[in-house]
Amino acid sequence: MESSAINIPENPLPPGLLQQMNAYWRAANYLSVGQLYLRNNPLLKEPLKLEHVKNMLLGHWGTTPGQNFIYTHLNRIIREYDLNMIYVSGPGHGGPAVVAGTYLEGTYTEVYPNITQDEEGLKRLFTQFSYPGGISSHASPQTPGSIHEGGELGYSLSHSFGAVMDNPDLVVACVVGDGEAETGPLATAWHSNKFLNPLTDGTVLPILHLNGYKISNPTVLARISHEELEQLFRGYGWNPIFVEGDEPEQMHRDMAAALDYAVDRIKQVKYDAEHPNGQRPRWPMIILRSPKGWTGPKEVHGYKIEGNFRAHQIPLAVSASAPAEHLQILENWMKSYKPEELFDEAGKLLPELQALAPEGERRMGANPHANGGNLLRDLRLPDFRNYAVTVDAPGADGEGDTYVSGRFLRDVIKENQEKRNFRIFGPDETVSNRLDIIFEATNRQWDAPIAEHDEFLAADGSVMEMLSEHQCEGWLEGYLLTGRHGLFNCYEAFIHIVDSMFNQHAKWLKASSELSWRRKIASLNILLTSTVWRQDHNGFTHQDPGFIDHVVNKKATIVRVYLPPDANCLLSVMDHCLRSYHYVNVVVAGKHPAPQWLNMEQAVAHCTRGIGIWDFASNDQEADPDVVMACSGDVPTLEILAAVSILREHLPELKIRVINVVDLFKLEKSTEHTHGLTDKDYNELFTTDKPVIFAFHGYPWLVHRLTYNRANNVNMHVRGYKEEGTITTSFDMTVLNEMDRFHLVMDVIDRLPQTGSKGVYLKQQLQDKLIEHKHYINTNGKDMPEILNWKWKA
Amino acid sequence: MESSAINIPENPLPPGLLQQMNAYWRAANYLSVGQLYLRNNPLLKEPLKLEHVKNMLLGHWGTTPGQNFIYTHLNRIIREYDLNMIYVSGPGHGGPAVVAGTYLEGTYTEVYPNITQDEEGLKRLFTQFSYPGGISSHASPQTPGSIHEGGELGYSLSHSFGAVMDNPDLVVACVVGDGEAETGPLATAWHSNKFLNPLTDGTVLPILHLNGYKISNPTVLARISHEELEQLFRGYGWNPIFVEGDEPEQMHRDMAAALDYAVDRIKQVKYDAEHPNGQRPRWPMIILRSPKGWTGPKEVHGYKIEGNFRAHQIPLAVSASAPAEHLQILENWMKSYKPEELFDEAGKLLPELQALAPEGERRMGANPHANGGNLLRDLRLPDFRNYAVTVDAPGADGEGDTYVSGRFLRDVIKENQEKRNFRIFGPDETVSNRLDIIFEATNRQWDAPIAEHDEFLAADGSVMEMLSEHQCEGWLEGYLLTGRHGLFNCYEAFIHIVDSMFNQHAKWLKASSELSWRRKIASLNILLTSTVWRQDHNGFTHQDPGFIDHVVNKKATIVRVYLPPDANCLLSVMDHCLRSYHYVNVVVAGKHPAPQWLNMEQAVAHCTRGIGIWDFASNDQEADPDVVMACSGDVPTLEILAAVSILREHLPELKIRVINVVDLFKLEKSTEHTHGLTDKDYNELFTTDKPVIFAFHGYPWLVHRLTYNRANNVNMHVRGYKEEGTITTSFDMTVLNEMDRFHLVMDVIDRLPQTGSKGVYLKQQLQDKLIEHKHYINTNGKDMPEILNWKWKA
Repeated sequence: MESSAINIPENPLPPGLLQQMNAYWRAANYLSVGQLYLRNNPLLKEPLKLEHVKNMLLGHWGTTPGQNFIYTHLNRIIREYDLNMIYVSGPGHGGPAVVAGTYLEGTYTEVYPNITQDEEGLKRLFTQFSYPGGISSHASPQTPGSIHEGGELGYSLSHSFGAVMDNPDLVVACVVGDGEAETGPLATAWHSNKFLNPLTDGTVLPILHLNGYKISNPTVLARISHEELEQLFRGYGWNPIFVEGDEPEQMHRDMAAALDYAVDRIKQVKYDAEHPNGQRPRWPMIILRSPKGWTGPKEVHGYKIEGNFRAHQIPLAVSASAPAEHLQILENWMKSYKPEELFDEAGKLLPELQALAPEGERRMGANPHANGGNLLRDLRLPDFRNYAVTVDAPGADGEGDTYVSGRFLRDVIKENQEKRNFRIFGPDETVSNRLDIIFEATNRQWDAPIAEHDEFLAADGSVMEMLSEHQCEGWLEGYLLTGRHGLFNCYEAFIHIVDSMFNQHAKWLKASSELSWRRKIASLNILLTSTVWRQDHNGFTHQDPGFIDHVVNKKATIVRVYLPPDANCLLSVMDHCLRSYHYVNVVVAGKHPAPQWLNMEQAVAHCTRGIGIWDFASNDQEADPDVVMACSGDVPTLEILAAVSILREHLPELKIRVINVVDLFKLEKSTEHTHGLTDKDYNELFTTDKPVIFAFHGYPWLVHRLTYNRANNVNMHVRGYKEEGTITTSFDMTVLNEMDRFHLVMDVIDRLPQTGSKGVYLKQQLQDKLIEHKHYINTNGKDMPEILNWKWKA
Repeated sequence: MESSAINIPENPLPPGLLQQMNAYWRAANYLSVGQLYLRNNPLLKEPLKLEHVKNMLLGHWGTTPGQNFIYTHLNRIIREYDLNMIYVSGPGHGGPAVVAGTYLEGTYTEVYPNITQDEEGLKRLFTQFSYPGGISSHASPQTPGSIHEGGELGYSLSHSFGAVMDNPDLVVACVVGDGEAETGPLATAWHSNKFLNPLTDGTVLPILHLNGYKISNPTVLARISHEELEQLFRGYGWNPIFVEGDEPEQMHRDMAAALDYAVDRIKQVKYDAEHPNGQRPRWPMIILRSPKGWTGPKEVHGYKIEGNFRAHQIPLAVSASAPAEHLQILENWMKSYKPEELFDEAGKLLPELQALAPEGERRMGANPHANGGNLLRDLRLPDFRNYAVTVDAPGADGEGDTYVSGRFLRDVIKENQEKRNFRIFGPDETVSNRLDIIFEATNRQWDAPIAEHDEFLAADGSVMEMLSEHQCEGWLEGYLLTGRHGLFNCYEAFIHIVDSMFNQHAKWLKASSELSWRRKIASLNILLTSTVWRQDHNGFTHQDPGFIDHVVNKKATIVRVYLPPDANCLLSVMDHCLRSYHYVNVVVAGKHPAPQWLNMEQAVAHCTRGIGIWDFASNDQEADPDVVMACSGDVPTLEILAAVSILREHLPELKIRVINVVDLFKLEKSTEHTHGLTDKDYNELFTTDKPVIFAFHGYPWLVHRLTYNRANNVNMHVRGYKEEGTITTSFDMTVLNEMDRFHLVMDVIDRLPQTGSKGVYLKQQLQDKLIEHKHYINTNGKDMPEILNWKWKA
């Protein structure tokens, strides 16, 4: 095994360059402190006064100087080796550093022409930071060069790995905070190196930044021994290179040497991939230990600041109510960077320092990969109609809806193989979710050893599987943010694991859609299957349809929810989602063989409307309905139609209208969501006064939340999952939650007194039927034949 | 550093014992296969026929024989060293193993007297497994000895560490699956060893079970080199002991030696803690590499089963439609365990094998820690009224509500210091959430090195902080499940990180509440602060009040949501929560200084009702109101009262009723939630026909979801967070979301035509005010004085 010490030359930086880089770093630090504190006098041309300082001091200093140091050094190796590199700022609040870095290299001004390269521009740059309506303390969508905000911690490495997939020339320098490193998602993300293919993917260069502290605690990784730390990262499969200290000159030399060595190692890995030696690649990483709040105030009122948790946010209060000498401390601190040596009289960075930044698109703030919409190209999509299942009549046998969609996805993979811009992600569930036919076209990418009986594993593949929903989601987000397309397939219940990641991505999409210079990216497509209603042997723990409840709280312009009732509808919906931009599309579909209702022509028409009356099941064509039977989701649709068939047999005089909802937001008012129906259209469907019995895939309250302000709200009766579940048959799950055909019929009878004694009698029969059902499954461990063999008859 | 090889004797098991243990293991495997397949002929006394086999074969074999092996060996060391040990089954589907283990040791029959220790009992044991209404394939609440279900993967280690906190004699043997080990939460949980105090806490003995495969993929940890694996776990700070192979005799010897060595190391750690040597303890762990589906069919139709992913679930289809020879393969497989050598004629385990199990409460299925309610004792609680803040009149200055509650919590810690049965958990946010006064009574527990300027760190403390919401939640759950009390404090937005963990815990509570033998445990108390409305410098990423939306979907008998409007109410609510059992209590409170409304007497009365009219703010005492102004949450309460004060000044003739909601479920019908108001009571508060302007802490739709079926639903107008946010002032956040006082007043005017021209004029003034506000904050970076200095005047 190579030692990290071998190739590092004693002094890789000529003295002149070292001094220049140090000056560049000072400039970045100066701009960072300026952002935290000032709203005027940005070059300190006059003595600092309180009126130059912001009224509210908000922001984070701790991680910033270290990130400025890193950014400065990355600029050098980009130029030295002509690297195609972007920067991911993992620590929570590195915003001032990324803003300073992109301002110094010129991209900030290009993107925001008001933030000019002069004194006025500096003033604006400083003022906008953590200011009402201004920019945040994270590397937000507003920050050029950013694909990762870091407001919520833990996803920087996953995003970075997603970014380099199928981008063989790209290097993502990913700064990982030692606080962030304590999160679960980050702790498992180190293992991504077992999946990366050096031939077809790019490089993630992690820089673990040990600045020792979180908000008010030390970090775990900064307080274990050097030996343990090295073992940990070697155990994770990396080749760690240590850079540790606080003396700038020596640190510059060490960092330059470490980065040279890292580039050398990366080239070696790439070379080895073309000349395989049977070894898994061991990529380099850097462990940078530097003081929190480095170069800031050492001590204030006896409290240690630099190198302590107290440097985390604003390290020094400067205001009318703070001690008066703080103003002087601030001025001394800022002047310690010697701005007069960095900026000319007009406030522009000196040319010899400007020359240290890369040029054009090599600048990390201008790299097109960090504004992925620029690179986005539409997918080549086969005609989804070619994958239609034959539905001669409603209720035809099905093969499993996701299974059918697998054929389409397989060919999507094939069609885009050459472009390498489409991937499918899942936590070891692609087979279980019955999408395995896609392995006719590709494999699961896996760069660790492959054993004889493994299936569908290869160093090169379009499917990424790791048993971590966090990784799948994070990889996919990184892949999308750099301008590609993808799909996440997941068990419905466990998608909640990434609730918070979804939040952050939805917020990123909303915020970036408000920026003229950020291009739209491909939608985040989530296919949820192995749903609540079909968890025969997994039971209660695997039953939770509530992700869509979570999704609907996000901005209406960003989120879409689809519940296709059969395979042809799923095909139509999937095609639509893969063509869309800048949404989160959540598609809920079944994987088990189930009845099919619409032929492809009907499915396209139905999905295009998103909601509609199913004439074949309705008998109100000649008159107003007595009752509306609505359904959304495959199992509810089956139960509603089974209920309708009972009603039409036993109470043929009832006029029934059947409505199916594919596009959930159709239920919401058009004023709330662009997909929403107008009240007029809604009322035409649901009537304004007739009972509506609605069988819903998820928690019933979601329908109420969407329809609370509709005219017919008081007559809406929704059945859905209400947290009753156990190990049982598929049908019994609907019984436990009172969404089965028998309960649905009883719901109708209860609401229609006109069914009279016939209704009462039918209800009695159905209650007996439910008892019979219970007895049967307890005895036989499976559903009654009349349930299993039930078929829709027109 | 010690080598794991040193102390292991060549052959620690006398041959007789080895054969007996092997027989015990065979018995457990036999019972496991029986659970998967049979519903009759449990002892194979007659030739196996299809009618003896279940109609639906559901369940998981893969992890089971390995866990049976482990359980058998743990039984030996429990007896040998008189260990107080419980068993945590991390891999997803180890249910058959834990059921078999507890059945063989006798606890299963004690808990479920119908499952007798004879042929009939075996038949029932087999039949109930993965059968409608039966038991699941996980170690569910129904399983004696379990505190961890494992339906969702990733939390076994966190639960185990929580269980041993303040239980110095307890050892948790935690089997970690290699699939599970890929999840984020599990990957960071290994670091829990930096927090454990060997003097006051117990021991977690992780057994990483490398059986190589997940559902259809190899696992990452099984495919890295031995060297990497050892480095990884040494890097994580453990002392790994390897047991690897598939030949039973040798594996028995190796496992026994490894466990002897592990016990020796544990004793050494405990000894060292009493004789400190300046070193952090290095606890032992076991890495067990054994074939997936060990001892099962080697190959079926040319497909490798044992030692491959195909052993994951039912490895062999046996049914009318499967190949006929499978029945014989199954019979041969089961007979390979030689049941006739294990059970007597009546079906009872032979006495010499029974003797291998521990006795009484030493049996892992009977250990009282695994039914924590048995050990639960109420907290000693100081009188929360003693911590009241003085509120001479509504609108008094506040110190920050969580800050005030910190004094109470500090003394809760003090009062229960001796019992050591209360802990506070948080992701490095206890200080930021302004609960730091608790550090007058305790410290953050931390077993890694402590540096000079650290604060509130000690080897012994009642506060657990790691930057992982998963760890905090998992630790707390383990602590509660073993009969103690606790509180999780968290930023509101980031509690979504544990949405799915909350789901599983709520499901555990619901399922366990349906079992007579499971005792109630203390409630899971979650204090959410640093809320959506007060994220001045964190901005959009830190704004999400939707956790309560997620919570309300869970069973009404389990979940409670409180939004105390001020400090006295928070004290009253916290006291109530700490006294409660078997709920998840979510409390949302502010941390910043804010107006106080109720003195303690009023607060207690108000919180006891959970909802009520605030007379001091209302002027409808003599008549019906013209409008109801409702609020829930601290910021909405402030804005509603500010709006009311504007209305009462400018439109004094309006009759206004002000309602505050502390207990959110009061809004739901009494038929839906035990806290819900009856329609009569609700209508008396909200009227049946007057406009209701409701300012809500969270997403406005949640109020609609709770009240959709109330009489006055159509007149309910809710303002809340609608995903509009950025870096801005506190007040501006309410403006962006139109929940500020000015918008609220305009909402009233819009709904009350009788306000006439005065209303129109006031509205115009307020629109001007909003423009003035925008201009002011843009210029000054802070709110207008009239906002900052606004005070309620009666």
